[in-house]
Amino acid sequence: MSELFEFGKRILASQPFSVLLNTELDRFEPGMAHLSIIVRDEFKQQHGFVHGGVISYLADNALTYAGGSILGDSVTSEYKINYLRPAIGQRLVAKATVLSSGRTQAVCQCKVIAMNENDEQTVAVAQGTIIKVEPRN
Amino acid sequence: MSELFEFGKRILASQPFSVLLNTELDRFEPGMAHLSIIVRDEFKQQHGFVHGGVISYLADNALTYAGGSILGDSVTSEYKINYLRPAIGQRLVAKATVLSSGRTQAVCQCKVIAMNENDEQTVAVAQGTIIKVEPRN
Amino acid sequence: MSELFEFGKRILASQPFSVLLNTELDRFEPGMAHLSIIVRDEFKQQHGFVHGGVISYLADNALTYAGGSILGDSVTSEYKINYLRPAIGQRLVAKATVLSSGRTQAVCQCKVIAMNENDEQTVAVAQGTIIKVEPRN
Amino acid sequence: MSELFEFGKRILASQPFSVLLNTELDRFEPGMAHLSIIVRDEFKQQHGFVHGGVISYLADNALTYAGGSILGDSVTSEYKINYLRPAIGQRLVAKATVLSSGRTQAVCQCKVIAMNENDEQTVAVAQGTIIKVEPRN
Repeated sequence: MSELFEFGKRILASQPFSVLLNTELDRFEPGMAHLSIIVRDEFKQQHGFVHGGVISYLADNALTYAGGSILGDSVTSEYKINYLRPAIGQRLVAKATVLSSGRTQAVCQCKVIAMNENDEQTVAVAQGTIIKVEPRN
Repeated sequence: MSELFEFGKRILASQPFSVLLNTELDRFEPGMAHLSIIVRDEFKQQHGFVHGGVISYLADNALTYAGGSILGDSVTSEYKINYLRPAIGQRLVAKATVLSSGRTQAVCQCKVIAMNENDEQTVAVAQGTIIKVEPRN
Repeated sequence: MSELFEFGKRILASQPFSVLLNTELDRFEPGMAHLSIIVRDEFKQQHGFVHGGVISYLADNALTYAGGSILGDSVTSEYKINYLRPAIGQRLVAKATVLSSGRTQAVCQCKVIAMNENDEQTVAVAQGTIIKVEPRN
Repeated sequence: MSELFEFGKRILASQPFSVLLNTELDRFEPGMAHLSIIVRDEFKQQHGFVHGGVISYLADNALTYAGGSILGDSVTSEYKINYLRPAIGQRLVAKATVLSSGRTQAVCQCKVIAMNENDEQTVAVAQGTIIKVEPRN
């Protein structure tokens, strides 16, 4: 396991909200990050689909991770998300990549994919700005 | 309690993810909606602030509610959020309003406010498009 | 005329694209900016409405001005715009305000209003991040 | 020249603002569109770079074209753009693709690339929603 991947796992384990949703870090390399969750009934909305808030959380977090793979400890400054279709599936994966980065910020894009036994569908796309967090003394 | 407010409460109770986060509907009138959550430790990220995913969830849901106050049962098509400062507080309130609406969609804005005993601060602003869900037969 | 307003006029006069569109600075105070253009036929699209690109330009520029009223010489880092209705009118005004600002960036919102002799309508709303430009040596 | 490409050229020629900027349609196929402009001094801002409004116009228009390649005559409902670096170059090309489409709308992404004799750089990325225009009677 690479040092970066270990760093990523450690950050995820220190995010209580990610622990609550049981988010997994599947891939974490310079310029990209994949985060996933197993869909539980309690993640849904009134029509039986995964709640947009869960999809947004996963996209937001994957964007931050992608940026953080270059910048170190980071937060999302802003992002935009388009929901493409209702999210039905056993598992959601958010795949984010860095499009451009500087010393203190990175612009990233992300796809959120709903996975079932036999197929997968992109359910949302996001784009946003990640900024480096200066260490607190 | 107005009919609209009852409708809103019923929808919220039928969203398992909102039940998980214990979201409250504080206000729901034609053209506006206020949703809030009591901040629990499990809603936080690695720096001790409320996780962006929670803020996004609340903003997204408030946008949908605002749109839904005009359109009826609705979902978020897309939105954009800017985080303004770290969210620290006992309670988060998302206040959304409709800027413009047609027969099938509405454009809404939202502020997310972190509330403490003695002060409140806007921690995020969002803007998005809400679309009416046609009833399933 | 305030020093800030003079600074704003000078910047506008030094933007060839704003000169091409004959953009006017109507108001420029700490935390807000109003920019306007007289609609010419050459600003339109195929349906006879003002081209979205003109509306975006005006919104983008007003966002930068609002941020710049606090930060000094600035550029837009990112923004999002929703078009609310076709823009018909003799004049377009973009009114932008600062929602939040720090040392190097500001988050701003903007409305673009189409004005006719007898009425006015908001045709677009935008939200974005403005960043301070460090002086070039 | 394909029927779609001819349709696209005809639309572009009927947009006075595109004629003013002398926009070219370089490629137009189902699911994608490339639009470009030759950079003129009058397209610049105060630092000598291409004005963000020009980049936004080109991105917006390319998004609409990409959506329109599937939907027919269309307009942009909303989009978001991140500027990645100052735009310097002889030519700007916006390359847009459709990510997802339905009967009445499409979600598209776009890159804007600044081209010089010896290199090219992506200067902006955009994502937005395109909606079909119903024919006027």
